[in-house]
Amino acid sequence: MPANDALSRLLHPRSVAVIGASDDALRIGGRPISYMLAQGYQGRLLPVNPNRQQIQGRPAFASVAALPETPDVAIVAVAARLAPQVVADLGARGTPAAIVFSAGFAEMGEEGARLEQQMVAAARASGIRLLGPNSLGVLNPRIGFYGSFTSVVEMGFPQPGRVGIASQSGAYGSHILGIAREFGIGVSSCVMSGNESDITLGDLVQAFVDDGDTDVITVYSEGIRDGAGLQAALEAARRARKPVVMMKVGTSAVGCAAAQSHTASIAGNDAVTDAVLADHGVVRARSTEHMLDVARLATRRIYPVNNSLGVITVSGGAGVIVSDAAEAAGLPMPEMPAAAQDHLKELIPFAAPRNPVDCTAQFMNDLSIAGRFAEAVVEEGGYQSILGFFTYTVGAASIADGLRAQLKAVRDKHPDRLFVLSILASKERVQQYEADGFTVFEDPARAVVAIEAMGRFGQAFARRPGQPVPVVQQVALPAETPSEAEAKRVLAEAGIAVAPERSCATADAAVAAARELGYPVVMKILSPDILHKSEIGGVLLNLGDGDAVRAGFATLIERGQNAAPGARIEGVLVAKQLSGGVECILGIQRDPVFGPMAMFGLGGIFVEVMKDVVLQQCPFGEDVAERMIRSIKGAPLLLGARGKPPVDVKALAAMLSRLSVFAHQAGERLQSIDLNPVFALPAGQGAYAADAVIELLPAAAAPLLEQSEEDAA
Amino acid sequence: MPANDALSRLLHPRSVAVIGASDDALRIGGRPISYMLAQGYQGRLLPVNPNRQQIQGRPAFASVAALPETPDVAIVAVAARLAPQVVADLGARGTPAAIVFSAGFAEMGEEGARLEQQMVAAARASGIRLLGPNSLGVLNPRIGFYGSFTSVVEMGFPQPGRVGIASQSGAYGSHILGIAREFGIGVSSCVMSGNESDITLGDLVQAFVDDGDTDVITVYSEGIRDGAGLQAALEAARRARKPVVMMKVGTSAVGCAAAQSHTASIAGNDAVTDAVLADHGVVRARSTEHMLDVARLATRRIYPVNNSLGVITVSGGAGVIVSDAAEAAGLPMPEMPAAAQDHLKELIPFAAPRNPVDCTAQFMNDLSIAGRFAEAVVEEGGYQSILGFFTYTVGAASIADGLRAQLKAVRDKHPDRLFVLSILASKERVQQYEADGFTVFEDPARAVVAIEAMGRFGQAFARRPGQPVPVVQQVALPAETPSEAEAKRVLAEAGIAVAPERSCATADAAVAAARELGYPVVMKILSPDILHKSEIGGVLLNLGDGDAVRAGFATLIERGQNAAPGARIEGVLVAKQLSGGVECILGIQRDPVFGPMAMFGLGGIFVEVMKDVVLQQCPFGEDVAERMIRSIKGAPLLLGARGKPPVDVKALAAMLSRLSVFAHQAGERLQSIDLNPVFALPAGQGAYAADAVIELLPAAAAPLLEQSEEDAA
Repeated sequence: MPANDALSRLLHPRSVAVIGASDDALRIGGRPISYMLAQGYQGRLLPVNPNRQQIQGRPAFASVAALPETPDVAIVAVAARLAPQVVADLGARGTPAAIVFSAGFAEMGEEGARLEQQMVAAARASGIRLLGPNSLGVLNPRIGFYGSFTSVVEMGFPQPGRVGIASQSGAYGSHILGIAREFGIGVSSCVMSGNESDITLGDLVQAFVDDGDTDVITVYSEGIRDGAGLQAALEAARRARKPVVMMKVGTSAVGCAAAQSHTASIAGNDAVTDAVLADHGVVRARSTEHMLDVARLATRRIYPVNNSLGVITVSGGAGVIVSDAAEAAGLPMPEMPAAAQDHLKELIPFAAPRNPVDCTAQFMNDLSIAGRFAEAVVEEGGYQSILGFFTYTVGAASIADGLRAQLKAVRDKHPDRLFVLSILASKERVQQYEADGFTVFEDPARAVVAIEAMGRFGQAFARRPGQPVPVVQQVALPAETPSEAEAKRVLAEAGIAVAPERSCATADAAVAAARELGYPVVMKILSPDILHKSEIGGVLLNLGDGDAVRAGFATLIERGQNAAPGARIEGVLVAKQLSGGVECILGIQRDPVFGPMAMFGLGGIFVEVMKDVVLQQCPFGEDVAERMIRSIKGAPLLLGARGKPPVDVKALAAMLSRLSVFAHQAGERLQSIDLNPVFALPAGQGAYAADAVIELLPAAAAPLLEQSEEDAA
Repeated sequence: MPANDALSRLLHPRSVAVIGASDDALRIGGRPISYMLAQGYQGRLLPVNPNRQQIQGRPAFASVAALPETPDVAIVAVAARLAPQVVADLGARGTPAAIVFSAGFAEMGEEGARLEQQMVAAARASGIRLLGPNSLGVLNPRIGFYGSFTSVVEMGFPQPGRVGIASQSGAYGSHILGIAREFGIGVSSCVMSGNESDITLGDLVQAFVDDGDTDVITVYSEGIRDGAGLQAALEAARRARKPVVMMKVGTSAVGCAAAQSHTASIAGNDAVTDAVLADHGVVRARSTEHMLDVARLATRRIYPVNNSLGVITVSGGAGVIVSDAAEAAGLPMPEMPAAAQDHLKELIPFAAPRNPVDCTAQFMNDLSIAGRFAEAVVEEGGYQSILGFFTYTVGAASIADGLRAQLKAVRDKHPDRLFVLSILASKERVQQYEADGFTVFEDPARAVVAIEAMGRFGQAFARRPGQPVPVVQQVALPAETPSEAEAKRVLAEAGIAVAPERSCATADAAVAAARELGYPVVMKILSPDILHKSEIGGVLLNLGDGDAVRAGFATLIERGQNAAPGARIEGVLVAKQLSGGVECILGIQRDPVFGPMAMFGLGGIFVEVMKDVVLQQCPFGEDVAERMIRSIKGAPLLLGARGKPPVDVKALAAMLSRLSVFAHQAGERLQSIDLNPVFALPAGQGAYAADAVIELLPAAAAPLLEQSEEDAA
């Protein structure tokens, strides 16, 4: 059975066997049966228990072999040691998918890990797909399928709807499910992936992309295992116009341990996740509430491409709160056109008509004012998203129905716009507005954050392919981490501009090189064993004549020998000292999950203190590189602050893009690259790397890396 | 009557007259009566209406004069034009306080403003205190006092409790009141200040400080009018150990208009509010939910001085969410002691015992484990605050009561600790836990933010007086904005170190001065009419010999004449070029609400782009100055990053502190000071201002300033 079909069955089984079925509705093997009986599961329920004729009133079967049909999904709720055989039996019958509740596998140490491998091997042999082990299961409230033993449903079963939930944690996934119910969010399916011995988070996202019942995908992750698989699924979601909102908690210990290089220690592992998710148009949620706010609004399926917010309010203060929140979120709130403002002023002389449009409490005397103000904001203001702050006034007995009618009329005339209300009202009143097509938030600031996210989805869905990545000559990597001179030679071969320089084995050669390059020069120790030269005093700046170069040569050799006894010292590097530009840093760091990531920032001491850097997964074109450069906080320094000339951004972008392609092509031996500093010279004069460090795994060690990645997962 | 007594009566009236009382329970003059009748107001209710014998079943009186007693509080619900006379009548009877509902005053233009002044004059004549006009009034649910016409109570009356609410907005104050009710927050009083013609926000905070029924003060502000009064009240709250949590929305237009100088344009007006509020230990809320989360937890009255968080969880994922949130909030989560970890490992071998302490789902099989884990976190971990994440498990029928008993036993043993639970449960279950002394949050991340705030209150309450401000010689200010040389002379007189320099009227004098100071030198145009010299090319750096100085003199004079025709050019300033230190900026900006504010940041181009600055209200001692210096993000650059020597922080702090005292003493004519750059030299070598700009109002214009401040209010 194709993988997609098995996952589709997992969400929508026509028949479910429960292996280890219990008559006790509170036991792990009893809960799913009790839940499905309570919720009227629409398929066939097949309990398996060798010791009982009946389970919770249903006929039971003695074994997998004794089942009267091959189930679409089997729930495995037996002791861990028995699970591999059960999976083998299920596979032998051609069962598409099994949900393994059983715990006591890889999460419990080495012995459990062996058992898990045994079970996976049994599954691979027959092609049956496994969710878990140690999974809290799958719930599909649309068909009453409860392949789960979560007790969160004791508080109430989830409402059926069109939001999919994929969670790596059972406990937190259930917590989300409980809060979703409070938020009034309808669920298509909720899947908790457990140990992910087979089915991964990426598979689940893809299953929701393929699922006709799911419009919006929410994801809770504690650690991404299969980066490429997840990225493929996220990209499929983007193309299918299904918004993904994701909570990724914590920072991966693996990533931190791997953060040896300059680049990684500046940027941090969590920033990598941010960059990759943003690339796919995923909205990364900061909290459970944030995730569910965004998901709830997203079910309206209105994703403005050029989002803008028009606000109608009955309180100036709320207008300010909304404006503050919109500015913080980066959601534009353009002013109303002047003519529209005049026209509103005619209706209420003391109204504030700019945006927020404050219709004041006056509207309570003449409800048509609320309608005319709302219509003006939508029609004349032309905003993609409209937020109305009416707070508790919607509940006032004298106006409640009239106000609702006014607002509904405007809403119905403009089905393409996103309408959100911030009101305080009874549950019934809120439900009426929701049914009218308004999404309701009590807190206007939370509404703004959710509205902004809809625009991000819209932008991502509308995104066209960027520039193609440049063609970069495939360069053979050295057998091990190269010296600075060798690193620069490799980069130059890949078309990355380095500062003119010479390797010199003697003081005489250094003096000759300096004369040829022109004073002042920079001198650096040249050794494959000394990576971070400035830390040992291995860099001398601003050498102005031959005597200084000669003395510098002696100083550097001595410092190199003192700092790293036994280091292979090949001499010194003499380079022309660049000036007049802005120092930048370009870096590459191999992320264990997402592969090579490029970093750009302003160089020198400030990048380390200010952490003002941007990351992007490799490879990418010059358009993306330029967007990165322009996105850092310090960008004005590059673009001509305080009357200084702008730097050669085009050349800098070309270098960054080529570096990303080089890193992508270099393969898994490449650990990191630091180009620090890169001198971005004034426009038209180019950009040059003045120092370069490339860290490589030894040629023979590549298989070891793959091993360690496997462990990390 | 003393002011405090009148405000106390306003919150706790023994009798209330309603002037303009209406028989219609939906009208402004009818609602307070209907609310008080419904809620059983404990005092005497005295409707005043010349046309009716009875109002809503109560005997009515024809006029203020006809009242059978002097009411503690009168509600004025008459047309605006009648209000001044009513206030005069009430004052004549000795009424302590009036709540003016009537609108149509200063908020409606000039004519209304005149009417408002007339009413205030009438009040001042008798001493009656006014809330409003345009106020939605006062609610005290503890005694059933509803001196308000807000319709938010149609959704339900507020619960009585110990949280005071002071709001400048009626609509938003009511919105907060509605959400407080949903959050289960009990209210002592809620007051909405309207136009603040008399009683200000500061008065209301002071009233809550003095109010024996209020433990926690929440404040919603759209614009602070009386900075000094508010600050005095906030300081009184701090000394009384009453936490204040405040939403201050928007950025003051007044402040922005005044933001002419360098310092203000960098720091922004909102940052001034942040700095001043933090100084008084006020927690500034980012949203309504944030404010009410903090207020709700604060009602436990546990404010740890050295806050730390211990977490017990049943989900590893929730533990990570809490750790992420604690790191973001700056709340320490130290590890459990090693011995305690070993002991927990004995209870559950696969538990994660560090902190968060993960007791896994195992506890459901043996509930004593939850109690023993919780006890270990409290007793052995020694944390001031404890957060338990039990999500929906608290509701599972089989364990609910047992778990509650386990947790309650631990809580009862440690009444001094702050106990918070993140659970999903029925309202009844949540109320049980709340009654047991646990504050409940569904979202663990929101719990962490609130817990962190309790520590900030604790720190503020425990704060000892800092170092006294240094004695700075009172310096006579020049009659108008001085030239750079004059500015430096004034500052030097106040003991602020400036770089050695000479004013030179001729090129010869400049060459002589340069020789005396030692090359290289800096030269700057010297003119009281050119404030920002570098923008007109009026600064020349690194002049190495006499020829360069002579040529530079001519260049500067020419540039000065071209850039500012008619400017008084007094010559040039020749200064020794400082090097080897770190460039900083020290500034003063007079805030229209809070007076002179000092700013510190790293100098040069980065401060403008990175906005990495810190603000503090003047004056302050060297301890505060040093704390400011160490608090900026770029502080490592001052403290010795990358092997560079640390700068003379003591000298820098002394300069900053003296500058703050100078600014404070200078009075209202001082608009701003920019010391940019200040060279902070290596430790022991001092810090020197290399440039200084002082902006003054002309000596005659000081009264004008006061006028404009009055307008701003």
